[in-house]
Amino acid sequence: MTTIIDGKKLAQNLNDQTKARVATLRNQGIVPGLAVIIVGDDPASAIYVRNKHRKAEQLGIKSVVRRLPATITQADLLAVVADYNQDATIHGILVQSPLPQGLDEAAVINAIAPDKDVDGFHPLNVGKMFANVPGHYPVSCTPRGIMTMLESLNVPLRGKHALVVGRSNIVGRPMAALLLNADMTVTITHKCGANLHDLAIAADVLVVATGVTHLIKAEDVKPGAIVIDVGMDRDEQGHLTGDVDFDRVKDRAAAISPVPGGVGPMTIATLMRQTVDLCEWSEQRANQ
Amino acid sequence: MTTIIDGKKLAQNLNDQTKARVATLRNQGIVPGLAVIIVGDDPASAIYVRNKHRKAEQLGIKSVVRRLPATITQADLLAVVADYNQDATIHGILVQSPLPQGLDEAAVINAIAPDKDVDGFHPLNVGKMFANVPGHYPVSCTPRGIMTMLESLNVPLRGKHALVVGRSNIVGRPMAALLLNADMTVTITHKCGANLHDLAIAADVLVVATGVTHLIKAEDVKPGAIVIDVGMDRDEQGHLTGDVDFDRVKDRAAAISPVPGGVGPMTIATLMRQTVDLCEWSEQRANQ
Repeated sequence: MTTIIDGKKLAQNLNDQTKARVATLRNQGIVPGLAVIIVGDDPASAIYVRNKHRKAEQLGIKSVVRRLPATITQADLLAVVADYNQDATIHGILVQSPLPQGLDEAAVINAIAPDKDVDGFHPLNVGKMFANVPGHYPVSCTPRGIMTMLESLNVPLRGKHALVVGRSNIVGRPMAALLLNADMTVTITHKCGANLHDLAIAADVLVVATGVTHLIKAEDVKPGAIVIDVGMDRDEQGHLTGDVDFDRVKDRAAAISPVPGGVGPMTIATLMRQTVDLCEWSEQRANQ
Repeated sequence: MTTIIDGKKLAQNLNDQTKARVATLRNQGIVPGLAVIIVGDDPASAIYVRNKHRKAEQLGIKSVVRRLPATITQADLLAVVADYNQDATIHGILVQSPLPQGLDEAAVINAIAPDKDVDGFHPLNVGKMFANVPGHYPVSCTPRGIMTMLESLNVPLRGKHALVVGRSNIVGRPMAALLLNADMTVTITHKCGANLHDLAIAADVLVVATGVTHLIKAEDVKPGAIVIDVGMDRDEQGHLTGDVDFDRVKDRAAAISPVPGGVGPMTIATLMRQTVDLCEWSEQRANQ
């Protein structure tokens, strides 16, 4: 029997926990605060930001959405970030990607205080993750959410082989680092790797984040593998689908995440959880 | 014909270039400065530090060796680092590992100014490397030296498969990141991976950094592979040898690095090169 990894349900559970943590903090007079900065009027970005704002409010997190014109200068944008860095009521700062042309996204990420880097994109946090140092630091939300999905299966990962297809800084690379930190053997490859089939068929855990619709077919999957689909693609009929041919792969995998209803809900739930983490860690530092 | 990758010769070439760069800087009144901090009296550390000091002096780099007692407090050690952070004549700071028990090595590395982190161990630099961001930053010297060795072969790496055996923060992890940044498919595994043979036989480039004498046998190596041995082991007769059974693997590999005379000399040459890099980058920032 294949386990369909129900991202909606796992996200609901995680959100319930987050809501309870927020309530506990509020009882102590502490309100976790999330600032989301959106520059310009990209329609997809507007939807993402709205969803984050709504979810934060549902969970009791104070959510501030700062809308800035596409004409803003780099210096003015950095000044907005600097203000939130100083604002004790804000624990997580997120700059919605992509920024309009002419703005330097890397410089903006580097300007976020690492302690408030709720997306986990600051190089200092990336470096801590990759070096697997002990202690608290934020981690990119999509791969962190996927680790929660894998943990929900109660299958030991140690010593098994993971393949990560895609090597972005948002998903592929941090995913590989987290799986390595879970004592797995990890392979990371580009979506265009000529030997993708040979790599995939050897993987006990397969994470696919390429944006290529149905890149992974049934014959590419090792029987009994765990398959995580990070794709958010549109099929020919315009329906949301993934990088994995779910209908055919599902009979071969031991567990598989669907699209929609898999990784997507977990990413936003992890963002909320991490906002509360940052708030709690901030309190811990203040009380030291 | 197997290419024996002559680390001594490559290191000599690199040192010649470094020496010439130092001479050019000195003609402008700039002297690259390296501070090496050694705590306690570990005999192996004393030899490593002496070798670094001598090499720096040979190349015209100002070398300061700061010997501190094993009884030093964490606070006093951090104060020494802070002094060098402020010292404009010092461009690279290195704290010789291991530190005596009771001192927090991670905290000491974190205290080094990232711009002077000549070992490339600071999480900010690790994060930049892992995210492959553009710009200048130091990188762990052993893997950076290995990249120079691979470049000397003039073999395209892009799209090929590398296996890194060992996942330390000094060698394995940064090695995997640099090979990924070179557009390779990269697998990283622990030395105890049960399926090491299956992984190794598939690798076009095999980097072994485990400390396990002759872990890699001839039958583990893909014919025509490039094999880099980071081991510095002792055989039963007490002779220096590597993690690869060189005598038998060499007839199967396209290229192989020996031990001694392979990675070792390249690591120290890369440390010297990176000291001069840090000096030049510091000058570039000052002139901006």
